[in-house]
Amino acid sequence: MPGMTITSISLSISLDGYIAGPHDGPDNPLGDGGSSLFDWWTAGTEPLANDPRFAPPTRSRQVATELFDCGAVLTGRRTFDIARGWGGHHPAGAPFFVLTHSAPPHWVGPGTGGTAVTDGIRSALDQARHVAGDRPIGITSANVAQQYMAAGLVDEINLNLIPVLLGSGVALFANLPEPVGLECTRVVESDGVTHLRYRVIT
Amino acid sequence: MPGMTITSISLSISLDGYIAGPHDGPDNPLGDGGSSLFDWWTAGTEPLANDPRFAPPTRSRQVATELFDCGAVLTGRRTFDIARGWGGHHPAGAPFFVLTHSAPPHWVGPGTGGTAVTDGIRSALDQARHVAGDRPIGITSANVAQQYMAAGLVDEINLNLIPVLLGSGVALFANLPEPVGLECTRVVESDGVTHLRYRVIT
Repeated sequence: MPGMTITSISLSISLDGYIAGPHDGPDNPLGDGGSSLFDWWTAGTEPLANDPRFAPPTRSRQVATELFDCGAVLTGRRTFDIARGWGGHHPAGAPFFVLTHSAPPHWVGPGTGGTAVTDGIRSALDQARHVAGDRPIGITSANVAQQYMAAGLVDEINLNLIPVLLGSGVALFANLPEPVGLECTRVVESDGVTHLRYRVIT
Repeated sequence: MPGMTITSISLSISLDGYIAGPHDGPDNPLGDGGSSLFDWWTAGTEPLANDPRFAPPTRSRQVATELFDCGAVLTGRRTFDIARGWGGHHPAGAPFFVLTHSAPPHWVGPGTGGTAVTDGIRSALDQARHVAGDRPIGITSANVAQQYMAAGLVDEINLNLIPVLLGSGVALFANLPEPVGLECTRVVESDGVTHLRYRVIT
């Protein structure tokens, strides 16, 4: 039921609000100091069933498994380029939709999990809903998250809060036209990360 | 033992990092929308022993009691002016030290709990240590917190994280010259607030 699909911002973030450090790019995907934001994904001992490249700490496994269980991913062109399009297959294993002004030459289209969307966030959301079924749609880039937040199209915010202050970098929360009320629906204290889940209520 | 005194940033903060909304001032102390940051202080039913004006929810009582149990408070002139100097007596019940370029005309000096400090953050910290004994020193304004962070003089960060995105206002984390590593030492999930405590490790 497409109408039931949850759209969920899903990102690892520093305590001061950055999802990547400064100077991020294809050769420095998480920016200076930003790799600490992803350390928790491999800080445990037991590989994740969904993807054995990852082994989060025990108390993070349920959250990590859920993050992988999304039905589609919405992402931005800058994130896509920095990640080199994940080689055409997003780590979450779901179809992904890249918001962009012009289609990238690689890693989208037939034979990949990627689709370029050049006609805006509502079109991308419609396409994501079409493939996601009743599984959540993950929003995994800051700029795209800001666009969906400003349009009132986000249902949930899932943050993996990392105990570091990066000082600068790519800020998740910016360009919000008005305050947004939230309800905290889950807190999971784990090793090197605190998982916070919020429902958007206004 | 002054050498053992912990300096602790201690503030309520929105999920997007603001300790007050925009347009804060003496007639709008927490800025537009910012009063939601303090709702948790009165969201419970049982008054706090330290100060019966406050009644935090049950799971916040231990944290709130600790916040009141500080030995001295370091604050900034802007916070002081907006709060009208707390009438000369800080709500935490502790002596407070106001970082300022020139002494305020009211609410400091004999008969009050306030001391104006015009010769910098290290002098203020020395004076706070002198009166705090082995109890923690609370840093309760954003600008002053930033100065102490940049100088490497903060031991702990206590945040009462509120489920709201204010979009703009007074940002706590700014002007940090380099990344800072933290260790999360406590997470308390309560009603309308998540209490996070971090130790500064680098």
